Order: sequence, then C-alpha cells, then structure tokens
Amino acid sequence: MTDPLLAILHSGLKVYDLGRPMFVGMPQSPNHPSYSHVLPRRHGDMVRADGGSAANDLIVTGTHVGTHIDALAHVSHHGRLYGGADAARAAAGGRYLEHGVHTVPPMLRRGVLLDVPRALGASTCEPAYEITPEDLTATAKRQRVEVVPGDVVLIRSGWGRRFDDGPAYVGAETGVPGVGEAGAGWLASHGAVAAGADTIAFERITARNGHSVLPAHRVLLVEHGIYIVEAMDLEAVADAGLYEFLLVLVPLNLVGATGSPVRPLAVVSDG
Amino acid sequence: MTDPLLAILHSGLKVYDLGRPMFVGMPQSPNHPSYSHVLPRRHGDMVRADGGSAANDLIVTGTHVGTHIDALAHVSHHGRLYGGADAARAAAGGRYLEHGVHTVPPMLRRGVLLDVPRALGASTCEPAYEITPEDLTATAKRQRVEVVPGDVVLIRSGWGRRFDDGPAYVGAETGVPGVGEAGAGWLASHGAVAAGADTIAFERITARNGHSVLPAHRVLLVEHGIYIVEAMDLEAVADAGLYEFLLVLVPLNLVGATGSPVRPLAVVSDG
Amino acid sequence: MTDPLLAILHSGLKVYDLGRPMFVGMPQSPNHPSYSHVLPRRHGDMVRADGGSAANDLIVTGTHVGTHIDALAHVSHHGRLYGGADAARAAAGGRYLEHGVHTVPPMLRRGVLLDVPRALGASTCEPAYEITPEDLTATAKRQRVEVVPGDVVLIRSGWGRRFDDGPAYVGAETGVPGVGEAGAGWLASHGAVAAGADTIAFERITARNGHSVLPAHRVLLVEHGIYIVEAMDLEAVADAGLYEFLLVLVPLNLVGATGSPVRPLAVVSDG
Amino acid sequence: MTDPLLAILHSGLKVYDLGRPMFVGMPQSPNHPSYSHVLPRRHGDMVRADGGSAANDLIVTGTHVGTHIDALAHVSHHGRLYGGADAARAAAGGRYLEHGVHTVPPMLRRGVLLDVPRALGASTCEPAYEITPEDLTATAKRQRVEVVPGDVVLIRSGWGRRFDDGPAYVGAETGVPGVGEAGAGWLASHGAVAAGADTIAFERITARNGHSVLPAHRVLLVEHGIYIVEAMDLEAVADAGLYEFLLVLVPLNLVGATGSPVRPLAVVSDG
Repeated sequence: MTDPLLAILHSGLKVYDLGRPMFVGMPQSPNHPSYSHVLPRRHGDMVRADGGSAANDLIVTGTHVGTHIDALAHVSHHGRLYGGADAARAAAGGRYLEHGVHTVPPMLRRGVLLDVPRALGASTCEPAYEITPEDLTATAKRQRVEVVPGDVVLIRSGWGRRFDDGPAYVGAETGVPGVGEAGAGWLASHGAVAAGADTIAFERITARNGHSVLPAHRVLLVEHGIYIVEAMDLEAVADAGLYEFLLVLVPLNLVGATGSPVRPLAVVSDG
Repeated sequence: MTDPLLAILHSGLKVYDLGRPMFVGMPQSPNHPSYSHVLPRRHGDMVRADGGSAANDLIVTGTHVGTHIDALAHVSHHGRLYGGADAARAAAGGRYLEHGVHTVPPMLRRGVLLDVPRALGASTCEPAYEITPEDLTATAKRQRVEVVPGDVVLIRSGWGRRFDDGPAYVGAETGVPGVGEAGAGWLASHGAVAAGADTIAFERITARNGHSVLPAHRVLLVEHGIYIVEAMDLEAVADAGLYEFLLVLVPLNLVGATGSPVRPLAVVSDG
Repeated sequence: MTDPLLAILHSGLKVYDLGRPMFVGMPQSPNHPSYSHVLPRRHGDMVRADGGSAANDLIVTGTHVGTHIDALAHVSHHGRLYGGADAARAAAGGRYLEHGVHTVPPMLRRGVLLDVPRALGASTCEPAYEITPEDLTATAKRQRVEVVPGDVVLIRSGWGRRFDDGPAYVGAETGVPGVGEAGAGWLASHGAVAAGADTIAFERITARNGHSVLPAHRVLLVEHGIYIVEAMDLEAVADAGLYEFLLVLVPLNLVGATGSPVRPLAVVSDG
Repeated sequence: MTDPLLAILHSGLKVYDLGRPMFVGMPQSPNHPSYSHVLPRRHGDMVRADGGSAANDLIVTGTHVGTHIDALAHVSHHGRLYGGADAARAAAGGRYLEHGVHTVPPMLRRGVLLDVPRALGASTCEPAYEITPEDLTATAKRQRVEVVPGDVVLIRSGWGRRFDDGPAYVGAETGVPGVGEAGAGWLASHGAVAAGADTIAFERITARNGHSVLPAHRVLLVEHGIYIVEAMDLEAVADAGLYEFLLVLVPLNLVGATGSPVRPLAVVSDG
C-alpha cells in the first residue's frame, strides 16, 4: 500500500522557497562574521590522469547570516539560557552542547503566514513600526486562520521588498518594523514552536540604535524556548495569498553552534 | 478546505534524519577544506544594558564535507561541464554561476533506498567492493521497489557503520565500497534525479589510491546531470526496512558554489 | 672579534614601529576579505592533568589588509605580470608560484621618508591631492636627502592621522592623496626597490571612484617590479624629523600569495 | 653625519632567514586551526577599464602554525597567566588584551644559537631526547659564547632536518627532542628574553603522548614571562657556524591574539 504522502507527491506539490540566496556582499547584520565564498580549486588547477577535474569551495561565515535560525543558545539574560542553564558554563570546550542548534529538530510543521501590512491596508509596514498583538490578532482574523500550538508563525512586515537594496534592508538609519515584547508574548501564548520574519533582526528595531536591546529575543528564546527564523523571503507566498502550508525547516546539524543558515520551504499540494 | 498535506501532517509524520552531525574533527575527505567552528562571542563577552547577551559562531568549511550534495559545477571532464559548458570560463568572477549549487532546486521527491548488503546477505559490503548493476537490480527486486524517473536513489553499502571510527570511515587504507561506472550508468538509465550513498566518495574507491579516478562522478555529474549526495546516514531507515519515502533535500542557496552541506530527511506518514 | 652590528646594538637602538595594529573592525579596503580574529580555545576550555591550559586563535584575513606589502603577482595589465608572465597561467594550481610574496626577500635596506605635507607647508595633503614628481623632488631637497637605487621610499601624505576615524581613513567619499602615474615614474627612475605610503591604496584616489584605476600600481608592480607597502604609520618617524634609517621589512613567507601583512620598522642607533 | 647603522648597511649585511615557508599542507600541530590559503580573485576575474586586474588572497590560519611566537597569553597554569592575571577573565570580549601578542615588542636583540647536537658530537638529537642544563652549558662553552640577560636563545636540536617529511617532523609517533623543565629553568636563570627551537613544540615531547604536558611552557611563559619561538629553521645558520648575531623578530601586531607567525632573521655584517 502506498503511503498517502507519496500519493500526494505523485499528484504534485507546489514549493515556495522562503530562503534568500547567499552571496558575497549580501545584506547581513554587522554583528556577525560576514559571508565569504571562494574557490580554492577551479577546473584545470589539477587534472586527473583520465581528464577529470574537480572544483571546490571554501565558505567562511557566521551562522546568523542569510536566512537562518537562532538556537536557544544564542541569547542569554542575566547569565541564564532557556530553562535556567548557566550561560557562561554552557560554553565550556568552545561550543554549546546545551541548547546548540544541533538540538533543534528538523521541522515539518504547519506554517502560518501573517501578512500584517495587507491586513493594515498597506504594502509594507513603516520603518521602526512595532507590530502589536492587536495587529497579529486582526491579521489572523482577516485571513481566517487560527494559530494553534505547534505552529511555525511567519510574520510578514513587507520589509523584505528592500532586500535587493542592501543597506535599506539592514535599515540602520531608518529602523526596521517587527514585533516587540508584546508581540513576542502573543506568539508564546499561542504556542508557536518557532517564529519567523522577513527582516534581519526579527523584531522591531528603532532608528540608529542598532541591536542594543532585543526584548522579543528574550521572550522567545530565553523565556519560552521558541526558535526564531530571520531574513525570510515571504513575498511570493504572500503574493499567492497562501496563509497555511506545510513548513519544512531543516537546520544544519552544527554541533554546538548557536544558529544555522536554513532554506525554509512552504509546501502545498497542487493536485 | 484543508490541504491534504496538512491533513496528513495532522495525523502524524515519521521523520528519519539522513544527515550526519557536523563537528570539528569529523571524518571528511582530505581534498576539501576541513570543517571548523569557533565562538567569536560567548555569553558575557558583551552584555547589553538590559542584561541580555548573545553568543555567535564562525564557521570555516568546505562544501563537500559532512553530508553534502555535489552540484554539476563540481566536476568537469576534458574541460567540459554538463551540457558542454567550458569549465575554465565558467569560473570567471570566482564563482560558478553556471551549474552552481544555487541551480539545484529544493527537492521533495520520492526517495528509494537500495539496501545492497542486505540483498547480498551481508551486513556490509566489503572494502573496495564495486556494487554492480546486477546488485542494484537484485536489491530492488528483493525489496519489491521499482526505481522510476524522477526518483532520488540512495544506495546503502553499510559502510556508514564505520562513521564513528573516523579514519576507518574515510577508508584510505582499505578502499571503500560503492558503485562504479556501470552502476552509475544503471542510475542514469533508470532516470534518477539524484543519487546518494553512505560513503564520502559515493563511488567505489580502491585501497591506497585516494580519489585518483572517479568514473561514476563523470557519468552522473558530467554526462547525465544527476546530483550526488555523499556521507548520508542510511542506518536507521535501513533498520526500519523502509525502502520508499518522501525524500526532502534542501541545499543551501550558495550562489556559485560547487556543493552544499545538506541534511536530507526521509518522511513517511505515521497515521 | 665582535661584529660591528652587535657593537651598535650594545650601544642602543631606537626602533620606530611603522605598522598599524590589526584588529576586528580596523579600516581596510572593501576589495579584500576582512580581518577576523577569534579564540577557538580559551583558558579553561581544556585543562591538562597538571593544571596547564592553552588558548589559541583563528585568523581569517585577506593579505592586503592592515599594513601590508603587495607582491608583484598582485597586479596584471592586459593579462601580463611583471616581466611578461602570463597572468592567467600563473594561477595554475591555485597559487602564484611566480611573483608570489614568497619571492620577496626580507629587506634590511636604507629607508627614506619623504614628508610631503611638511615640505608643502601643510600638516596633511588635501583629499584626492596628487603628489607630483616636483613635490617629491622638493621634499627630498628640503630634507637634504637623496634617494638612491636600492632605497625603500616612504611617502608621507599626512592621511595617516585619520586612521582612528576608520571611514575617513578609507576615504571613499573624499578621495585620498597620493602619487599618480608621474610620481610612480619618479620612484622608478630613482631606483626604489619598494615604495610605501600612509594610505590604504598607496596612490591617489579620487572621490567616490573607489579603486577603479590604479596607474601607479601598474607602473610600479607591472612595469618596474617595485613592491608597494600600504597603510603604514609614518607619524612618529615624521614627528621625529627622521628622514633616513635602516628599514626592516619582513613579509611572511606565504607561498603563492599576492601579498602579506607586514610590520615595518625604522631603526637608528641611539648611542 | 651618517648613522653608523647605515654605514654598516652600506658595507653589506648577510641575512639568514630563520623562518619556514607557509603553505597548505605544511607540518603543524594538530591542536591549532590548519593553515589555508586560497585565491578569491585571480587575474581576469574582474578587469578594469584600463586593462588592469588584481588578484588577492584569503588566509585562514591558527597563529601557532609555521614559524611563530607564543605570547604570554597562550598558556596559563591553575587559572593564572604570567604575573598572576586571571586567565578566565583575561578573555573577556573575545581577545586577550592582557599579555596578547600585541604586547610583544618588535625585537632587535643579540641572538645566540646553541647547536646542541654538534656539541654532543651528533648530527641531530635523538627523538624524545631531553636537552639538559648541562648540555646547554657545554654547548655554550664549546662555542665560546656566553648567554647574557636580554639575549634571544635559539636551541638547535637538529630535528629541523625532518621538516620536508611532514609527519616525521611533527613526530607524534617518535617523540621530539627539546629542553624540559630544567632546561627552561637554565634559560630563565640566564636572563633570556625569548627562546626558540627548531621543533613545533619547542620542548621535549615523548612518543605518542601528544602535547599532554608542557612543563617548559609553564616555566617560560607563565613563571618567567619569556616568549617562545617555534618551528624555526636553524640549519643554515648552524652550517655557517654562526653562534651570535643580530636577531630580528617582528611579530604581527594582532591585537588580543595569543601568538603570531613570524619570520625571524639572523643578521651579521658582511664588510
């Protein structure tokens, strides 16, 4: 008997890529080592006896660059990680065996997109706009979706449209829209397992203050153990008016790291 | 109306992780830059006014380390990539815009596991054993699965059991089992879109010869445009006797790179 | 019998450090991989049985960052390196065995400082000012020094005073003073073995044009085989009015690299 | 009046390079990130309007690889650095501002070579041989040199002859000759400012024990504040029978690092 998953696969799936391409010079947070890609060997550098040749890569990168997930080990508050673990001691040996990104399971979960500016009647949220719990509730209502425990909630601010204009996307001068402490509380109270956004910092950043305070990170990562996904591309899925889907999110199994680049997918059947 | 995918998700999925953990000192090919992970910032290095602190990572790595996928740009033959592209010119600018790993689409496809040693009545293939087309045919028959065009075919040699004993897994002294040119031809003639194995080189390696010739890479990557996935963990899925499943394989979107680490999943419904 | 060098050493030497400190975030050319330094192991991560512990470093960096020397392999013109070598072929194997920085001998040579703004009656050259052959001749005359074949000539523009204000020192918006093609010709005609400056690009850069043309690099590196040293700290030696000295310049022996960080010294006897 | 240093320079200097070349695959300690060099840009990747083109480098490396110097921050004992500094606290901010290699001044000092095997009537010390204080005293006596406070003392074991046979030079299987705790005490009591050797670990290593205990490091770095230079090439200077010279040793000014690659020179007048 065929697995029903394979039957659906056979009928056809539609896959939306929610990740950004990774390239040298891409917009990223200045707080993290920048992404670098070079070719140590190019074709022709070393040709085998039979005429074969292989090219390869060297990648140097932070893990909180490109579309990526934050593991719980990423943020501490007053010296404590989620669950009360001692943040200083957790680094012993030079890696976070506790709450590192290797402890984040691959996720195939219900994904819910909350297209906030659409609900607000705008194409994009204003710079430094704080998305409130009321905005989230109104958006869900307007879209007729309900966030339930176990969901991965993706919050579109519209800011992703600036991705191709790097510094505007980073938004140091303007600030960047996103949820604040209250919005993070909304996500926690609805039982989200992970939360994503189309901005680099996930949460609202005020102009010219950098990432000096990050209350939503504290609420999600430290207080509730909810993973954060940043710099997602939510444009195509929003354009399609697709608000719930199978969300596929598979972090690399980087033992002891505080995050991982990811390439999340929104998948629906296309039968 | 609920998408049938979400209905299945609701009933429950069983997910097998086919990727290996990535850690400093993990077994890898000496031909590629080794995997390195360090913590530039640990908790406490820089504490924000509100008591928050963030730790982060620097990763230095080749792309053909850990469980990974080879893009078509990885291998050339007599100066040509798949489709006849000029391999020297393709590197202009220091990246492979043609046939780089960013051209590999995220895959949700039928995955077929061929558990060769089990069909051969052994727990693992011998070192340097060449898995033949006849072996592949016999294995498929014994397992009552048929490889059809569009499938991702995963060939278990049993060698993955040596993963925890690093040098034995690399197998420089002993050689490593795998398909040869003929087995690669079998995969191409059955229409595989990608082929994976539980070894570092995917194909059969003879003792003490390193990767001096790689005919299966030529057949798959250069002649047929079939991606190769290496260093997979096929033990759990083989132990479960699971021979077909939804295969989820999402390379990072590394623009111009010749490969990417991946963490493939085998997914079945658990309803 | 004691070597006269040791006798002078015994009487006392005065050493001026002409190199800049290297640190994360230091001003550097955006054309090169940025300097990164992290601690993979800190004390306490791994303590030996006897109570000993070692900390170590990982450095990721371009070679044309910080105070550094350009090897002849760094620049080509119409596909040719110095002496006519084929620039494309020279990279075979992924390193420049021809004209790489390993071919630059350690230098203990007469160093001559030309303090151009002082001769011009200014504290610093204007942004984007082109230092002319006449300026160089007038400066040498005013200082009563003569540049002779074999010298290393250090040209102070005064721009180094901006080092602590990173973006001002990089000078993308303003341009940066330095010699042009004619000044480079002056250096070549006087037989300089190497030429240094207190700016990142060595030569004059116009505002908002980046490093789009570098004629002095062509004249020096490609046409005359004269090494270039960039981002030197010439302030203390200029303040001391010291215009000739033993110049100690020892590139790292990086086989096949196009440059190396250096920490040049100006040394005089202090007897 | 000409500086006497320049007069000697004019008469001629003879320079011995005491550094090893740095190349991918060079022998190094497995305890440190390995040296990697790649070319991000090769000539032709990006040609300027005027026909100019620049190639550049990316270096990824530990600092305790190749010929290098250990800063005092490299080693701690029972949680203390030299002078009693708290080793854990010293890393705050992710770098060693206290006792980092930026605190090591460029050295132009009297260098003394002690050619131990020659004094012992051998071409090289035996594997794992411990060079004793008596050996050092006998060698100095035979060479008619006296170590005085302020000297840099270079101890030749002859092991450097194995450099070209990488694993033999690392010597994991055989052990490596060098001073032990007592020899380190001899260096301290003679007032050495720095001590060098022609081996990777500087001190005597027993077979198959790795760097499990390093008592000479403790004595020199932690107890006496004496820098250690490792993996020097002492063959040419020993062949020339040159036992005292001007030693030029200029670490890179890597702020907060625990060591630096160096290329030390032995210089004598050649008048």
